[in-house]
Amino acid sequence: MTQPYPDHIRLGPGEDSVILLDQTQLPNRLEERQVRSLAEMIEAIRSLRVRGAPAIGIFAGYCLYALSRQLEARGWKGPALLAELEGLGAALAGARPTAVNLSWAVDRMLRAARGSAGEHMSEALGRECRAIHQEDQDMCHKISEYGLSLLQSGDGVLTHCNAGPLATSRYGTALGPILLAQERGISLRVFADETRPLLQGARLTAWELQQAGVDVTLICDNMASIVMKNGWVQACFVGCDRVAANGDTANKIGTSGVAILARHYGVPFYVLGPTSTIDLSCPDGDHIPIEERDGEEIRSLWYREPMAPSGVKCYNPAFDITPHTLISAIITERGICRPPYSLSLPALFSPPQGEPSYSP
Amino acid sequence: MTQPYPDHIRLGPGEDSVILLDQTQLPNRLEERQVRSLAEMIEAIRSLRVRGAPAIGIFAGYCLYALSRQLEARGWKGPALLAELEGLGAALAGARPTAVNLSWAVDRMLRAARGSAGEHMSEALGRECRAIHQEDQDMCHKISEYGLSLLQSGDGVLTHCNAGPLATSRYGTALGPILLAQERGISLRVFADETRPLLQGARLTAWELQQAGVDVTLICDNMASIVMKNGWVQACFVGCDRVAANGDTANKIGTSGVAILARHYGVPFYVLGPTSTIDLSCPDGDHIPIEERDGEEIRSLWYREPMAPSGVKCYNPAFDITPHTLISAIITERGICRPPYSLSLPALFSPPQGEPSYSP
Repeated sequence: MTQPYPDHIRLGPGEDSVILLDQTQLPNRLEERQVRSLAEMIEAIRSLRVRGAPAIGIFAGYCLYALSRQLEARGWKGPALLAELEGLGAALAGARPTAVNLSWAVDRMLRAARGSAGEHMSEALGRECRAIHQEDQDMCHKISEYGLSLLQSGDGVLTHCNAGPLATSRYGTALGPILLAQERGISLRVFADETRPLLQGARLTAWELQQAGVDVTLICDNMASIVMKNGWVQACFVGCDRVAANGDTANKIGTSGVAILARHYGVPFYVLGPTSTIDLSCPDGDHIPIEERDGEEIRSLWYREPMAPSGVKCYNPAFDITPHTLISAIITERGICRPPYSLSLPALFSPPQGEPSYSP
Repeated sequence: MTQPYPDHIRLGPGEDSVILLDQTQLPNRLEERQVRSLAEMIEAIRSLRVRGAPAIGIFAGYCLYALSRQLEARGWKGPALLAELEGLGAALAGARPTAVNLSWAVDRMLRAARGSAGEHMSEALGRECRAIHQEDQDMCHKISEYGLSLLQSGDGVLTHCNAGPLATSRYGTALGPILLAQERGISLRVFADETRPLLQGARLTAWELQQAGVDVTLICDNMASIVMKNGWVQACFVGCDRVAANGDTANKIGTSGVAILARHYGVPFYVLGPTSTIDLSCPDGDHIPIEERDGEEIRSLWYREPMAPSGVKCYNPAFDITPHTLISAIITERGICRPPYSLSLPALFSPPQGEPSYSP
């Protein structure tokens, strides 16, 4: 009962559409939405109806499969179908630039399409998108186990944004250890940053944890400092949208500030995410593109009336980079990476597998 | 033209009421409010219709004067009137616990009442509240001059909450140097933290600076880290609600986090406030009471609909303490104090005056 809304991303009837829980409506309404066209799919990603790096990867997989079913039903096949899917995939991957999982999932789906021989291309795509979803569940469960090994009963955990089941498949990454602890009767106390401007912490994390019965306290982002100073936080757990080869981590705007506070107060700061979030082709944080969003999100979105002067200039980056020097460990489904990340991260991917520099 | 709303606190006709600009209605409506009863006065302070440590001191002065006029009109005088005013003053001073200016102004008014001989007590109170207001204007102007000496044309300044004219009389403390620079044609670039939960930065600071023609960019609190990392900030300027004898400073929640970020990025962090904000009787920040406010401010205030799950636990401290070790200098109307504050702060108050440890 710690999974408040399993299968919040799934295929629609006939498998030519995708159904998603519209996360912009939470916590006030549980509203599902069915998307069928590429435009609707891109809109769902851009508007954050579906968000969270692993979740948009899963969503993109189902989308490409659903689109392939539509195309095959209209007679497309072979190289023409593949070329069309490659174009659709590029458009989907461009919907948000920062998270690597989106382009990772698209690439993986297109590889499956290219490798399909002697069958409908959509059959290969259907297997692949289900595999992406299933693997994410397995990964989240392993990440949760590794993450929980870093906590003790009674600990306080501070988290930023939302890296729970809604951001993934089940359990989540940063919230996974907390939900697993709850299932096992291990008591933790969670402080959730509300995460302006779009309030994913208030709307999604507080909701998921409250539904699961976890002891959660909602705070404004600028209260993280006093909460740490009060001695209430023994660990910070955050998700990630892209981890560079040196460990620099892109995550929701404000994450780097939490890491700096954690360092100041001597609290360990942990990044949790699947290996699909690690981008070894990206040398460091300076090479990760930072999406900048509409200032209206700061000025007026969610409010009864504008809360800032009309037309005032805003700066609204959606992510920031947390330098690897501030990260105590990066927790993946293959184990816990410690500094130096330039060694421990590549080791995750090196054969013979299973022996990266980690401490399970 | 850099003072968008001078005299936002003043006496009503007949001098038995106080008129204030209702700051909770900004930036959407310029709405004045007249308060006559003690209950209305306390409500105006508690609801933040008037806020900012120096401003609530000025307001409390006018309130006690207006109340004394009402009482004298009903025949009160002598020791009975004084005793009544002492009770009213204690009630006013208790409206908000953190800012020291409120009780400082009340004490000063009551001293004037006690010292009035051979005249109506209200005459002495009238002189005193006008003196408090006038002195605040002079102080703000001097603080602005000292503060401006720390900046260069082209600098970026980050500020938190609102310490502008609306928080004081004119110019303000933290915003004073910026408005003075604007008057003199010195170009600065200001980043205003929106300052959750009550958005004084978005609603008041951005409005005051926009009205004055200053180049201001509004950011969410959690964006201060990336803005500093981008190299856009050469100084942080904040106000203060109480400064302890060792320099520890209470100010709007989130201020300590900004100071930690500034230290991390090597940006100087300045506290600006009148000497009335310095409480030498308070040894350090641990002895400053921190007001905790209703969680509903986080969960739903200002919003079209609740933005967090119903009933979720919130922690909502209104202030935090910035340790003196993170403060580069404290700028007062008597000069710039540098560490060690345990020496430089008392020197501000020692005769012969005029020679504190400062660098004008």
